[in-house]
Amino acid sequence: MKKTIFVIGHINPDTDSICSAIAYAHYLRERHSIGRNVEIIPVRAGNLNNETKFVLKYFRVKQPPLLKDGKNKNLILVDHNEISLAIKNIRKANILEIIDHHRIGDVETIHPIPFENEPRGATSSIIGERYYCFHVPFTKQMAGLILSGILSDTVLLNSPTTTYKDKILARRLAKIANVDIESYGRKMLEVGCDLINHSANKIIVTDFKTFGDYSHRAGIGQIMVVDTNTALKRKDELLKEMERIAKKKHFAYIFLMITNILTLQTNLLVVGDIKKVKKVFKRPIKENMVILPNTVSRKKQIQPKVLNLLKLK
Amino acid sequence: MKKTIFVIGHINPDTDSICSAIAYAHYLRERHSIGRNVEIIPVRAGNLNNETKFVLKYFRVKQPPLLKDGKNKNLILVDHNEISLAIKNIRKANILEIIDHHRIGDVETIHPIPFENEPRGATSSIIGERYYCFHVPFTKQMAGLILSGILSDTVLLNSPTTTYKDKILARRLAKIANVDIESYGRKMLEVGCDLINHSANKIIVTDFKTFGDYSHRAGIGQIMVVDTNTALKRKDELLKEMERIAKKKHFAYIFLMITNILTLQTNLLVVGDIKKVKKVFKRPIKENMVILPNTVSRKKQIQPKVLNLLKLK
Repeated sequence: MKKTIFVIGHINPDTDSICSAIAYAHYLRERHSIGRNVEIIPVRAGNLNNETKFVLKYFRVKQPPLLKDGKNKNLILVDHNEISLAIKNIRKANILEIIDHHRIGDVETIHPIPFENEPRGATSSIIGERYYCFHVPFTKQMAGLILSGILSDTVLLNSPTTTYKDKILARRLAKIANVDIESYGRKMLEVGCDLINHSANKIIVTDFKTFGDYSHRAGIGQIMVVDTNTALKRKDELLKEMERIAKKKHFAYIFLMITNILTLQTNLLVVGDIKKVKKVFKRPIKENMVILPNTVSRKKQIQPKVLNLLKLK
Repeated sequence: MKKTIFVIGHINPDTDSICSAIAYAHYLRERHSIGRNVEIIPVRAGNLNNETKFVLKYFRVKQPPLLKDGKNKNLILVDHNEISLAIKNIRKANILEIIDHHRIGDVETIHPIPFENEPRGATSSIIGERYYCFHVPFTKQMAGLILSGILSDTVLLNSPTTTYKDKILARRLAKIANVDIESYGRKMLEVGCDLINHSANKIIVTDFKTFGDYSHRAGIGQIMVVDTNTALKRKDELLKEMERIAKKKHFAYIFLMITNILTLQTNLLVVGDIKKVKKVFKRPIKENMVILPNTVSRKKQIQPKVLNLLKLK
């Protein structure tokens, strides 16, 4: 019988998470180092957002199947190493490897496994470098997917998380994928920006990450827009929905980053103990909103502050 | 003012832990990629055992200074990623990087950091490979230390944790360090074997690792010997001391691996709930002892069973 290994990103998947899973599964198959009786399948831990759907359609790659439960499954985790961001029953899964670019989280294993975490702009970038290091040829499709993962997570190489290596790699991949970084990348991001036309609930939870434990936790959603003023017309409605979710799902704080992909400004909406938020962010908060210029990265620019916020008594 | 970064291994340091810290600090200095205003200092998290003292004396490297408290310190962790194995106040330290070859443990960070975990025979082996990859020249001293770390952790390349890469690297390093693997390695291990002549307490705690949380935890000590029968003459005394430590320090289980470096057999002494131990080890236990042929690795051959043991209700 064949052994099956699933490559999986985080829940509420984004483009980097999905593209990492597909590109790493392809890489492992091409390296032929995994034995004949092993089947490698990229999967998704939730529904795809429009940006990711656009990317897969553009490069003619089909959607990976949905995996709902990690129990007794052989998993390779990409783009996360945190239990709250992982598939259901992750503690009962057999985790074989982790590749990520986030903080070191709380996933533990019984045996030693390969775990590579690098402070790069995207997990896709780490995987792209492996192709180079081990001479696995890029197909046009894989180059396109890895490039898309990088451009999405770095907001067109503008995020402060972007490294020199990400930029070099993106340029090389754009040639192989036969796209122009600026025009393709902007088109991709703009497709993702249509989320603002959906319900308040969908806007908040589509790209939503939870931190802390159940007794005291915070959630941070992020939405990309091309026009901040239009988005802010729905501010009251969004705050009301954030209040509702916080109450129903027991969140001490809920944040929503409204990030403008053109001006690179984030308008951060927040519900919770505003005094403490003020203390940690060291910024004026007006009507539950903080204005943050040059802010696009949840991981680097918001999440560390929120983790400190959760530590405040 | 200069920024200081300490490279540190686990408490109850062994040869791999100390040699990794010294060799990685040297590597970082030689790469010149860390900036002029940064000082890199290898430190130890406890007293050195005789084996490690022999290694440092042989290659004329001085003992690294002792660091007692991690609070507000910039740390690079080598050879561990588990809070119970780390220096005091590790949660209040600023962890900058981790290199390890153990299971993925419970150390968490606020920011993304580089974390390389590889299932190799020794952390020294991962560091040795970095020298090659980034063309940092080995001095005779550093080659000797890295080789010693590998030979110590793999019991002269005999442990099942030993990989092909460890073996290749060891052979190359032996040439640079100008030693014969067999004769140097055996001499080094034999020096470590003199521990059996010390007090029962020292035998148990010198190379001792704790797993689980305070409310339900297990400790595993290991001692290397050249003559198992002589060691077993002190069995009753050792078990008595293990019982005393378990009671005083609240351990559900204490194990002591008496590992013969010539026959590669481990006589495993245990105190705790023997019925459960039997269930997990699936071996006969006579008078608090399990005989395990071809067993030298705590990490690969004992620790996973002990972690499962702690999960039993």
